[in-house]
This record gives sequence, structure tokens and C-alpha cells, in this order.
Amino acid sequence: MNVIQNLKWRYATKAMNGKAVPEDKVEYILEAIRLSASSSGLQPYEVLVVTDPGVKQKLRAAAYDQSQITDASHVLVFAAWDQYTEERINKVFERSNKERGLPDSATDAYRTRLIAMTTAKTAEENFHHAAKQAYIALGSALVAAAEQEVDTTPMEGFDSAQVDQILGLEEKGLRSAIVLPLGYRDEAKDWLVAMKKVRTPKEEFITLI
Amino acid sequence: MNVIQNLKWRYATKAMNGKAVPEDKVEYILEAIRLSASSSGLQPYEVLVVTDPGVKQKLRAAAYDQSQITDASHVLVFAAWDQYTEERINKVFERSNKERGLPDSATDAYRTRLIAMTTAKTAEENFHHAAKQAYIALGSALVAAAEQEVDTTPMEGFDSAQVDQILGLEEKGLRSAIVLPLGYRDEAKDWLVAMKKVRTPKEEFITLI
Repeated sequence: MNVIQNLKWRYATKAMNGKAVPEDKVEYILEAIRLSASSSGLQPYEVLVVTDPGVKQKLRAAAYDQSQITDASHVLVFAAWDQYTEERINKVFERSNKERGLPDSATDAYRTRLIAMTTAKTAEENFHHAAKQAYIALGSALVAAAEQEVDTTPMEGFDSAQVDQILGLEEKGLRSAIVLPLGYRDEAKDWLVAMKKVRTPKEEFITLI
Repeated sequence: MNVIQNLKWRYATKAMNGKAVPEDKVEYILEAIRLSASSSGLQPYEVLVVTDPGVKQKLRAAAYDQSQITDASHVLVFAAWDQYTEERINKVFERSNKERGLPDSATDAYRTRLIAMTTAKTAEENFHHAAKQAYIALGSALVAAAEQEVDTTPMEGFDSAQVDQILGLEEKGLRSAIVLPLGYRDEAKDWLVAMKKVRTPKEEFITLI
């Protein structure tokens, strides 16, 4: 299927049937996330893949009891950097220069500007910026999952402080941004599965200039 | 090409050659954006497609003179709602219920909660939330463009107040979030084209729980 067909196939699955997503498909989706674009190539987030039943139970409780969290086989948690720091930024540029066979000074001017710009902002502003980069990867993940005929439910409806605590994110300098269960739809129980996909009409959504 | 191949093919093009992207490919990319997921299906943003040379010149000046803006044939500007309002949210639910053949009361409970939740937040928080939804669509757009072998340069480096002013966004209740030129790489002039794509290694990026 092409990207448009994938996007038409997918929907925010409201009930999952507990069937396990094969590991090669999970790997494929994770690789799509890892390859996604991000501002200055920073990839300022990590992905936690939860399969442990006890941890999934706790996450479900922190997500207003949404059943997909325990009926999905894999629950991805996108956790964004809580702050940009010189150390984190340097690490990315050092790796990139090394892998490209460039002297580490090659990106000095850009890096210095970037560090000055980000460290002048509040942690909250930087977290929003980092989370936005995770949303780009969420966009890739939804298309990649659909291509693999894996169902997903992108979730913002969870208590982020609780999720951070359950997964020990604060100690890692991370904050939960999005939760994405991967699994298979339960057609009998899912009220949304047979509903028409509704989108803003093109004429209200696109303006040509 | 599949999603992973598309993601490997694409890169943030640093120089474009001025060649025009055919309209059917532009339509395809816009449709991928329009079909993208968003929180509660609100699609809280619009897309402006700029081809007018004079407007592109002004946008380039507002984007620190990045040449891709004038060397791309189409410049997409993702502009997020400046605020969630009862009116905007009602409009989405009314359309959705109508197209699904449901009574408009079908979503009352959810809609009332959503309106209460969003109107309790600051305009700035809501704008960040709306912009995040545009980033999901950016993720789809980058994959869709690569599938069509169209180059892109996702840009956050622009003066958003100037872009808003150039495009008259304030009057529309919108604020610029991302700029995405569509065009074709100029291999001779693009310093990034031959560079290795570098990403955070899996073991630092993914944690299994």
C-alpha cells in the first residue's frame, strides 16, 4: 500500500484483541521512528517499549483505564528530553561529525548558536520543542504501522506525572509526551472501526497563495 | 518504496534547483497531510501553499534568507489555531456526526469535557498542542513526499511573527508553526546530499520494559 492508502486504512483503534504484534513488525515501526526527521538532527526523545504485563496495568490506570494499553502487545511511550543542555547537544554533533568523517570543529558555528538559543529558553519551552520532534516520529510510526497492518492508538489522554513515575523518566531527564499502543483491532468491540473517517474538507484546510 | 526506504531516501535538502513539482504530486502530499491523525480529530491547523514569487521572496527574508524557499516550487506553511474555542470544536464535531449519520448529541459528553479542558488552558498551551498535531502531519508529509521522490526541507528557522504578518495569519486566528518547501535537490550545491544520515543508535534510543 502507498502512504495515502496506509493513512486511509488506519484509525485510532478503540478496542484491541490481545493478539501479539510479531517482533519484526515492531522493529520495523521502531526503525521508522528512529529514522524520522528532527530539528537539527537532535532526536531529543527516547522510546520505551513496554510489554511487561504489570507495567502495562499501571500505565492503563494512569491513562484513565483505556483498555488498549493492556490489550496491545507493545505500548510505545515517546519520552522527550526535559531540557536541552550543552552536553546533550554536543553528544549529537560529536557522533554526527565522527560518523561523517568530519573534524569535530566542522559544526562549531552552528552548534554554538544552537546551544545559545536553546539554553536561553525555559525548560518548558524546550520540552514543548522536544515533544514536537517526537510528534514527527509519531507521524512516521502511524504510517509505518499501517503499512505493516498493525493497529495503533495515539494517546495524549494520560496523567504524564504518573507515567513519568511508573517508568522512572525523571531520573533519565525525560518526560512522557505520547503513548502509542500497537496491536490488533477487536472489530466486535470497537465502536469506531465501522465509522467513516472524517476530515476537514480540502477547501477549508488548504489555501493557495 | 516502503516507509523505511522513503525515510532513508529523504534528507533536509539544503539547496534546491528551481524545478517545479508536478501538481499531482503536490496534491498527493497535501492529501497525506489532510488524512493525518490529530487529537480528537480536531485537525487544529491549516496549510498555506505558497507559489507566488513575491510572497516567496518575503518568506525567504523572514526565514534568514534560506534559499530553498525561493528555489522550491511550492512552500507549505503549517499554521496552527491560535486558540481552541467552543465554536471551532463544535464545528468539527458537527461535521463528523453529520458525515457519520449520527445525531449531533452523540458526542455531547466527550465534547463538553474537551471544551472544558481546552478552554481552561492558556492560549499559549493550546497553540503548542495544536502545533504538535501539525507535526504529526509533517511526519506524514515527509514520508509521502519521499515516496513521490520530492525533496523537502522542514524548517523551524523563521521569524514566526513576520511570517504571520506576510500571510495575514492573525486575522484568520492562526500562527505559523512549520515551513516546508517542496522541490528538487541541487546536487552540485547541496553540502548535505552526500553526507551519511546519522541517527541515535538503537541501544541509546529504545528501552525495552
